[in-house]
Amino acid sequence: MADEMNVANDETRTEEEGRKTNETNIVYIGKKPTMNYVLAVVTQFNNGMNEVSIKARGNSISKAVDVKEIVINKFLTDVKQKDISTASEELTNEDGSKSKVSSINITLMK
Amino acid sequence: MADEMNVANDETRTEEEGRKTNETNIVYIGKKPTMNYVLAVVTQFNNGMNEVSIKARGNSISKAVDVKEIVINKFLTDVKQKDISTASEELTNEDGSKSKVSSINITLMK
Repeated sequence: MADEMNVANDETRTEEEGRKTNETNIVYIGKKPTMNYVLAVVTQFNNGMNEVSIKARGNSISKAVDVKEIVINKFLTDVKQKDISTASEELTNEDGSKSKVSSINITLMK
Repeated sequence: MADEMNVANDETRTEEEGRKTNETNIVYIGKKPTMNYVLAVVTQFNNGMNEVSIKARGNSISKAVDVKEIVINKFLTDVKQKDISTASEELTNEDGSKSKVSSINITLMK
């Protein structure tokens, strides 16, 4: 459980409010090994969630796709992709400047 | 024109046959700077294509999403995403062993 919370909080730098309590079925992809996130997604489904979203930004997008493919093909063959979307988000850097980063949101459902 | 052919041939290591003539509206994302591929996609549309696919594997998947976001948001605002899909492909390494790699296919249309 502690591990999931870690995963969920990874990469939430700019938008932390409200997520910990309401949206625990979101797995944020960060810099940890791919299998950590695979385990987080599988655990969410095993805890009774019917939907789990995998979110990633920037270079982690590739890892998000890996996580989805591994979950669906190896661990939970009854889980399907409900939706996949990409977007462009604007982040404010520490010096106040802004930069754009691509993001992906993959929703899986049982 | 020479530049586009380069882009199209990038990362086609295992499946080269037939692509140069039939499927020039596919842009394969490789190791070049993102803007090279943005230019390739924009050029395809300007050459009269109604659909252009952006394909990438492994770590280049993030760059494929960047290319799509930049093309749609900055260069061709009349172009929309038709489809986005991911898959898991099996590659044969030089030593004969096999490894799996995730891939993404983003289709844009006018």
